Amino acid sequence: MAERHDAALIFDLDGTLADSVYQHVSAWDSALRANGLELSVWRIHRRIGMSGGLFVRALRRELGRDLSPALIDSLQRAHSAAYDKIVDQVRPLPGARELLATLTAQGVRWAIATSGSRDVAERTLTILSVPVGVPVVTRTEVAHAKPNPDLFLEAARRLGVEPRSAFVVGDSIWDLLAAQRAGSLGIGVLSGGYGENELQQAGAYRVYADPAELLLRLDELGIRISDRSHPPA
Amino acid sequence: MAERHDAALIFDLDGTLADSVYQHVSAWDSALRANGLELSVWRIHRRIGMSGGLFVRALRRELGRDLSPALIDSLQRAHSAAYDKIVDQVRPLPGARELLATLTAQGVRWAIATSGSRDVAERTLTILSVPVGVPVVTRTEVAHAKPNPDLFLEAARRLGVEPRSAFVVGDSIWDLLAAQRAGSLGIGVLSGGYGENELQQAGAYRVYADPAELLLRLDELGIRISDRSHPPA
Repeated sequence: MAERHDAALIFDLDGTLADSVYQHVSAWDSALRANGLELSVWRIHRRIGMSGGLFVRALRRELGRDLSPALIDSLQRAHSAAYDKIVDQVRPLPGARELLATLTAQGVRWAIATSGSRDVAERTLTILSVPVGVPVVTRTEVAHAKPNPDLFLEAARRLGVEPRSAFVVGDSIWDLLAAQRAGSLGIGVLSGGYGENELQQAGAYRVYADPAELLLRLDELGIRISDRSHPPA
Repeated sequence: MAERHDAALIFDLDGTLADSVYQHVSAWDSALRANGLELSVWRIHRRIGMSGGLFVRALRRELGRDLSPALIDSLQRAHSAAYDKIVDQVRPLPGARELLATLTAQGVRWAIATSGSRDVAERTLTILSVPVGVPVVTRTEVAHAKPNPDLFLEAARRLGVEPRSAFVVGDSIWDLLAAQRAGSLGIGVLSGGYGENELQQAGAYRVYADPAELLLRLDELGIRISDRSHPPA
């Protein structure tokens, strides 16, 4: 019997498995306004999923002014408070639960790696029915968030796979840049609101609409799923 | 003296001059949920700015079910009510007021053409300080909204220019498709949240970040502005 080189999957969370990007955009918009700062909403959207430190640096440039540590802290607390108010709106993306359940049922290893905090992630894991034992790497556990590769490298380590045997699935260019730096193949999904070309330019090998389409096309990644093991819809 | 072939500009409103796309997305999301319908938020985003009739047809396909006239009516009322609640958040995009004031001061003809209703448009015109006398064409005044060319053709007629002498400035692929069908050159702006390639593929001759960048680069469209007439920032 030949040696096995099974693929594993590492998923981003917001915009990839959960339909939460627009809620994060709205929460950052509220936080900025509450602190007397104005930034066009599309510019906020394009920053979701990147490291908070880099987000603040981009803010500084785009607002053309310096931000004190106290202001940055106030922004982060205002974002958390605003997101808390709308977190109940967050649903799984179409096919997300079915995709994860199918991978689990087939013995395909998978993990989650998010630039978000552990607290915020926990609530999203619950609506996705992520089983205990699945590796979940959050901002708190690595030195640098995306587009640095740390989150994906740590997820691969916990899965016990080489990064080059892992597909990284994400909705933002930050995921795909981080995937390239980790040495993993990147798969884009449109469900975070980026366009297909943006994701391809950032290194996506394939781009699917959402987890539902990825589930239908797992064969394109070389992942073998027997039809009978699909969980009921 | 040579015959003048001055260019004119026709602007879309939401996402092009006003930072209102994400509020419309949020209002449609609320309206759908209130009516027991679920659609991923990015799919709503990609439909903003198209005709309401086409939006409903797309909804029907994406939800995989028929929508009764009563349900469609209920959706539209729920969207208006939800948008009313957040309309106070809507601000001009960076540079929008300055761009319009500069064009007016230079005698460059311009108009506004929006798939939205007259009522919703009026509030946005106020925050943009659009002078009385500028042609404003809304959904109510034409047979078909974007991506049909009717709105832009009517705006060109009111400006007294041939459509091919008008630049159409818009943030969505619906604007750019309608511009092509009207025979006008399309200019994209990123401020509605589409990616640059999406806008180019839909026919954008140039893509700028927002009205502020367009103002700085009006020369690229062949529009001559004397520096001294720039209004104070």
